[in-house]
Amino acid sequence: MDIKKIISKTAAELDINYSNQGIFEIGVGEKLPKRSEIIEIIEEIRRLIFPGFFGSENTSIVPLDIFAGNELSIIYEKLYKQIKIALLFSLRDKKDRNKDELKGDSKSIDEISEELTLEFIKKLPKVQELILKDVEAELQGDPAASSLEEIIFSYPGIYAISIYRVAHVLYELKIPFIPRIMTEHAHSKTGIDINPGATIGEYFFIDHGTGIVIGETTTIGDHVKIYQGVTLGALSTMKGQELSGVKRHPTIENNVVIYANTTILGGETVVGEGSVVAGNTFLTQSVPANTTVSAYLPELKLKARRVKNK
Amino acid sequence: MDIKKIISKTAAELDINYSNQGIFEIGVGEKLPKRSEIIEIIEEIRRLIFPGFFGSENTSIVPLDIFAGNELSIIYEKLYKQIKIALLFSLRDKKDRNKDELKGDSKSIDEISEELTLEFIKKLPKVQELILKDVEAELQGDPAASSLEEIIFSYPGIYAISIYRVAHVLYELKIPFIPRIMTEHAHSKTGIDINPGATIGEYFFIDHGTGIVIGETTTIGDHVKIYQGVTLGALSTMKGQELSGVKRHPTIENNVVIYANTTILGGETVVGEGSVVAGNTFLTQSVPANTTVSAYLPELKLKARRVKNK
Amino acid sequence: MDIKKIISKTAAELDINYSNQGIFEIGVGEKLPKRSEIIEIIEEIRRLIFPGFFGSENTSIVPLDIFAGNELSIIYEKLYKQIKIALLFSLRDKKDRNKDELKGDSKSIDEISEELTLEFIKKLPKVQELILKDVEAELQGDPAASSLEEIIFSYPGIYAISIYRVAHVLYELKIPFIPRIMTEHAHSKTGIDINPGATIGEYFFIDHGTGIVIGETTTIGDHVKIYQGVTLGALSTMKGQELSGVKRHPTIENNVVIYANTTILGGETVVGEGSVVAGNTFLTQSVPANTTVSAYLPELKLKARRVKNK
Amino acid sequence: MDIKKIISKTAAELDINYSNQGIFEIGVGEKLPKRSEIIEIIEEIRRLIFPGFFGSENTSIVPLDIFAGNELSIIYEKLYKQIKIALLFSLRDKKDRNKDELKGDSKSIDEISEELTLEFIKKLPKVQELILKDVEAELQGDPAASSLEEIIFSYPGIYAISIYRVAHVLYELKIPFIPRIMTEHAHSKTGIDINPGATIGEYFFIDHGTGIVIGETTTIGDHVKIYQGVTLGALSTMKGQELSGVKRHPTIENNVVIYANTTILGGETVVGEGSVVAGNTFLTQSVPANTTVSAYLPELKLKARRVKNK
Amino acid sequence: MDIKKIISKTAAELDINYSNQGIFEIGVGEKLPKRSEIIEIIEEIRRLIFPGFFGSENTSIVPLDIFAGNELSIIYEKLYKQIKIALLFSLRDKKDRNKDELKGDSKSIDEISEELTLEFIKKLPKVQELILKDVEAELQGDPAASSLEEIIFSYPGIYAISIYRVAHVLYELKIPFIPRIMTEHAHSKTGIDINPGATIGEYFFIDHGTGIVIGETTTIGDHVKIYQGVTLGALSTMKGQELSGVKRHPTIENNVVIYANTTILGGETVVGEGSVVAGNTFLTQSVPANTTVSAYLPELKLKARRVKNK
Amino acid sequence: MDIKKIISKTAAELDINYSNQGIFEIGVGEKLPKRSEIIEIIEEIRRLIFPGFFGSENTSIVPLDIFAGNELSIIYEKLYKQIKIALLFSLRDKKDRNKDELKGDSKSIDEISEELTLEFIKKLPKVQELILKDVEAELQGDPAASSLEEIIFSYPGIYAISIYRVAHVLYELKIPFIPRIMTEHAHSKTGIDINPGATIGEYFFIDHGTGIVIGETTTIGDHVKIYQGVTLGALSTMKGQELSGVKRHPTIENNVVIYANTTILGGETVVGEGSVVAGNTFLTQSVPANTTVSAYLPELKLKARRVKNK
Repeated sequence: MDIKKIISKTAAELDINYSNQGIFEIGVGEKLPKRSEIIEIIEEIRRLIFPGFFGSENTSIVPLDIFAGNELSIIYEKLYKQIKIALLFSLRDKKDRNKDELKGDSKSIDEISEELTLEFIKKLPKVQELILKDVEAELQGDPAASSLEEIIFSYPGIYAISIYRVAHVLYELKIPFIPRIMTEHAHSKTGIDINPGATIGEYFFIDHGTGIVIGETTTIGDHVKIYQGVTLGALSTMKGQELSGVKRHPTIENNVVIYANTTILGGETVVGEGSVVAGNTFLTQSVPANTTVSAYLPELKLKARRVKNK
Repeated sequence: MDIKKIISKTAAELDINYSNQGIFEIGVGEKLPKRSEIIEIIEEIRRLIFPGFFGSENTSIVPLDIFAGNELSIIYEKLYKQIKIALLFSLRDKKDRNKDELKGDSKSIDEISEELTLEFIKKLPKVQELILKDVEAELQGDPAASSLEEIIFSYPGIYAISIYRVAHVLYELKIPFIPRIMTEHAHSKTGIDINPGATIGEYFFIDHGTGIVIGETTTIGDHVKIYQGVTLGALSTMKGQELSGVKRHPTIENNVVIYANTTILGGETVVGEGSVVAGNTFLTQSVPANTTVSAYLPELKLKARRVKNK
Repeated sequence: MDIKKIISKTAAELDINYSNQGIFEIGVGEKLPKRSEIIEIIEEIRRLIFPGFFGSENTSIVPLDIFAGNELSIIYEKLYKQIKIALLFSLRDKKDRNKDELKGDSKSIDEISEELTLEFIKKLPKVQELILKDVEAELQGDPAASSLEEIIFSYPGIYAISIYRVAHVLYELKIPFIPRIMTEHAHSKTGIDINPGATIGEYFFIDHGTGIVIGETTTIGDHVKIYQGVTLGALSTMKGQELSGVKRHPTIENNVVIYANTTILGGETVVGEGSVVAGNTFLTQSVPANTTVSAYLPELKLKARRVKNK
Repeated sequence: MDIKKIISKTAAELDINYSNQGIFEIGVGEKLPKRSEIIEIIEEIRRLIFPGFFGSENTSIVPLDIFAGNELSIIYEKLYKQIKIALLFSLRDKKDRNKDELKGDSKSIDEISEELTLEFIKKLPKVQELILKDVEAELQGDPAASSLEEIIFSYPGIYAISIYRVAHVLYELKIPFIPRIMTEHAHSKTGIDINPGATIGEYFFIDHGTGIVIGETTTIGDHVKIYQGVTLGALSTMKGQELSGVKRHPTIENNVVIYANTTILGGETVVGEGSVVAGNTFLTQSVPANTTVSAYLPELKLKARRVKNK
Repeated sequence: MDIKKIISKTAAELDINYSNQGIFEIGVGEKLPKRSEIIEIIEEIRRLIFPGFFGSENTSIVPLDIFAGNELSIIYEKLYKQIKIALLFSLRDKKDRNKDELKGDSKSIDEISEELTLEFIKKLPKVQELILKDVEAELQGDPAASSLEEIIFSYPGIYAISIYRVAHVLYELKIPFIPRIMTEHAHSKTGIDINPGATIGEYFFIDHGTGIVIGETTTIGDHVKIYQGVTLGALSTMKGQELSGVKRHPTIENNVVIYANTTILGGETVVGEGSVVAGNTFLTQSVPANTTVSAYLPELKLKARRVKNK
Repeated sequence: MDIKKIISKTAAELDINYSNQGIFEIGVGEKLPKRSEIIEIIEEIRRLIFPGFFGSENTSIVPLDIFAGNELSIIYEKLYKQIKIALLFSLRDKKDRNKDELKGDSKSIDEISEELTLEFIKKLPKVQELILKDVEAELQGDPAASSLEEIIFSYPGIYAISIYRVAHVLYELKIPFIPRIMTEHAHSKTGIDINPGATIGEYFFIDHGTGIVIGETTTIGDHVKIYQGVTLGALSTMKGQELSGVKRHPTIENNVVIYANTTILGGETVVGEGSVVAGNTFLTQSVPANTTVSAYLPELKLKARRVKNK
């Protein structure tokens, strides 16, 4: 049996698979958001927030209001397109009955996309301020950091937090697909998975980062520090889709520190203000304020010493 | 001492290093597989399996059998080339004595490469079906997932499992280098390291994923769920190469759930059907069916409460 | 309010943020090192160390001294540029008062940059030898490894260690920014975060790797093996910048093995020669030589069995 | 005066220029066709017409109906987009009063664009047949041509004629901008400027080509041969826009040959069937059938000898 | 003799050639201007002059003063670098004796480069105005032109004239290398070779263009029209370098028209105001004002008729 | 009728066209040379011949024998591949009967390709010397040239002659396709069409160049100067393929000058040593040595004056 025949035959089999699966019924002209475009948007926003750091060569001579205005218009242009695609596609998916009338009214999708994009644009100065506070927290928290520049350039924690802060704005504007594509991109680059729905206060500090998971309904206060391998997850994920929308991830109050490889689960689990959770701990119950907690009960002496050293 | 002289002198030193190390004796015309080409093959296969998601702009108007046929021929062309290079190179490496006669018979390598590539092509519809089941498992298991599209687009678990499923077919065809380059690419992107030799059943669910390691001789049943930071590893890896080929990684039966940051080691360790392993557990012994297990023995109350909450 | 006005207004707000933050006062002609260039340098060095593996197509016919000389000159050219930028920028940052006279004396920065780059170039044969020893350790340590070629091609451990070895040379030459950008690039690709300041002996073995953190003042002996998820960190990182320069990460002596997901903290913590630390352990005290240690005290039987199996 | 100020001041001056010139009043969301996309369309069509010649690597194994179907869908997708942009932009330009209502009726532009693109798609087999006849004419006419493959690969005449044949179909469908961008691209690559409006018969032969100009209202019969530097132009171009639409370029009947660097002008100038025009001739009057013509009257003997040699 | 030896031997031969030729003695750190960068500068300037036409996607929403300011700063950055390289290199070439002291005074080259770049930047609004007049001339002169947009997009005449206008400013600032690299790039794209030293008035019209040559000391008035294949050259170029700097190309006064393939030579040749030169003419003597000239003396009747038709 | 159906139907029509035309019967695994690769080879050779001019950044510090050796090995690698493809394809085309046995003997094609590539490599130093003489001729002949560097950088004449000199070596080695693809690339960039079969002496000078055509059997002596628009062509090209291999283009002896837009035709036409041919001349008869010739017989006075001026 020759190559061309095998190719034709296999193509026919795949075609049957396609038609058996709803996800491949893409109507003429319908499109999905483009991952590479969304990553481009992230990079433009990073250029805007940290001029001179990420590839804009002219930043030492351009008046910075001009630089910002130009970047904003590039971001607007790219984001508007993806938001419109995402809205159109998500409407197709969820409200099949209203599909036709919505399409006839395509101008209105244009207008909604324009409004949402402008809402986002207007929030960027505030987002920048938040991110600069995170950078400051990083500088104060890490003895190995030699300068703000080094942190901005190369710290994965700042990369992941920046993208979370951006994606969170889009999440709050209820834009589908795009916030998650953004944070998953950061996840891929850093090993830090912050769901765009999480609520995180100011001066958030992540060190090293790889393996950190912060779930969708997590609440984190100000000045919190989290180390690599920490999970803030759902206690029981067996029920799957039924739990959608319910608060199922922990609450971490102000000034808490959580050491490496610790797992904290459950929507009712609260780590109180100023508490410290040791590393490699599996925690599913709340911790009062100003407490040091470790799961290694038999090693009390060990723990005592560790606390003294601080 | 000037720059040109230092460059020439250092080059001579490196040249001595090269000639002292067998791996750099590459014969005229010999080649190594090309990583960037293999990554391209992965991307083409993803386009084939999920038309419209990863950069094929024309999917809303092309008849899908034509789309599939064209993608298959691109995959054939690229994969055939890399398989041939990998076979030629691996023969050089392992059977030095027969090298010359094998080269004289280069037509036969062409034929073997063609056959292996076609075997792979023929299995793609089946691979697609498996992957679509994994997507379904992801949708049912994750309350934060809002649609199949979001999962396909941005879930690292699906990315890593898809590539494992593809690489596993090549592993079973005993093609050298390529399966591992594929899964290590997924590892790099997701932090999920599934050895292409592992045996994994249907509806496999990975959440978040970063830090997951699944060893070469692991066996996993259907409907298994695994969270971030879980290792299914060898109990003792001290003996190194002596253990090559021996079953040295655990067996996980149907419907098992393993929570975050747990380590399960050993070829004789079996987690029985329907059991649940808590997070941050270090497990080197078997677990009977339908059991909940945690290493935190002294904290029984804690554990009990946690179990009740489910 | 129309789009152009919102863009102008938001740009003005960002401009205020810029001027309130010292990090954005970049003088005319001042530049920051370029991340993409530094990644290119890494790739060129990998080509130099492993000819034929990473995209240099002509390696089967080029005389290898010529190949090495050409690569060295490319590396020199690119690295010299980045070192000069990094030195100029770091002087701006730290010694503002001397800024003017330093700039007038720009020839001297040229000369220093040239010297430092040549120092680095001269050390590359030695670096290559170290890396080849690491490859050998990997081959002997991993039963799943089928050939040296596979390890070089696709093992994240080797990728991260290679880049650490390169970055460490630059760190010792006290070059700012660049070493950390290099190791953070490896961190992003592999999930392995080795600070360029760490001191690591020969035949270092990392398996799987994701989630490994090795801090700046860590000391590691020869023939050490470390698995995924292991942290060698600071005991207390609350004091932040005050600890800069102090030995605050552990010492790991020769022939130690540390299993998956274990956390070892503290500058006075020493794991003695030949000892083994089990997985999922949280360790903040020293371990004598030739000992097996695990934090799971209550599970003595379990541990006993595990140790027997080895 | 510092750089930033000069940049701001010059930008303001340019802004005044922009607002003084109607062509820069681009409304929000309005776009111009994209030259790079149109060139991509040309390249895809060349791939379709000559499979295997221009970068489609898989042509030796793909079933050719699948190849063609896939290429057609790519061409459809790209061309549809550009046609829609071109129509919208041209309407803006010419019928300003109806602009608003036209925009409200944007669905109809979608439909018109779809229809026009499909009309074009349907004509491609016919276009391919014409181009293959031109290739044949080239092979028969040029003693230096060694094979059809060489002609397809490297003859500028075939490049320019192919693109003319494609652009002419779009010209006849009255699509604005795109046909001219196509033929000017061919002009730039070959030095052959064929207006897409020209009417050209079968088996058209151009040798070398550089400097050939064929005007918009030129009519050329079958089996005509034209050499480098030949102009078929308007007699008087002084009246400019007044002549728009009038037949102002010559008519060349079947089997005519025109040698290098000859200029033939005027809408009433007809070169009759089977005639030959010598090189470096300036011709503004008609030539009867089967005649040899040259402007070098005093050199009759020379001309006679030249004709004998044929 | 094997491949590696032949390569080494041939390399040695080339090395001898290099050392025998002064042009390859490039000192450490010396550089030549980069052609690809200069082409990039041209493209940025075209984007600045015609916003929206050449790939700046955001032009429908960016405030145009911001757009212009950003483009200007990009142009400044790129051009400054190339001007500095060109000055340094040209000083090396011409004033070898002063080389050392000039290098010590490297700051002064920085300052000169900055000044020259700013001079250029300041002239861009004026250059834009000139080019817009050329576009207008093109629209009025060509009956086939359907809109200003079409001319800007696809007319080679406008492309070549625009680049000449830009290069001429740099020529007048006495910047070496760069002006010629610019006009030769236009030459390559359009077949129109305008020396950057030529003096050309307003409303210059070139139709089709291929084969046009305009020499360094040519003077052209306002409202001149030139067709394809026209040379305005030196009468005798036998003396080569001796003629450098002397006026050796013709003067074309206002409102002259020169038809296709005509050659006009000599520094004393003047075509008087309002005159018309027919096509395929070889002209080495001056023509009085308001005259129609053709070299085809024996064909007087023909010429008469042609003139009547106008 | 919907889009997918029209695409399928049109694809079927194209498929019929393909099967009716022999040129599209490409066997499995058969390939055509790749134009983009051949252009890459040209660029590498230019880098080799003029180090530092075309994008090799490291030329100020690399020892030049290392630079040359590395470039040679890149050229070998790329050229070998294309030569092998070209030979295999051309054998398919011409000797269909022996096809099968030739393929069985594929090693011999490997050997022949290796030999031919090495022959070419060995001639590169000689080719470089010839090209440097052409550069010198250009410098002496053009009063507008300010330096050797400017000529190498931007003169189309040197570009076209360099590529001709390279392609001519391949032509003499009887390699199919590749020489013509090379010279047509130069033709596209410069408007200068030199057939790779032409025989051209040393110190060849082309000014401006656009529109120059030099046919396959042309012979040109040393120190010849040719201006734009000059054709050295066949007298009668009506007989087409019958003339293949016959001397049909003119002979130009040493020290001849041919001015712009002149056409010289015929295999027996000889322009004798030291003669000068005026511009816009159509010449089909031989010219004795040391003569000035012009076709404008009636304008004797004009000609006389022109000659005096020289």
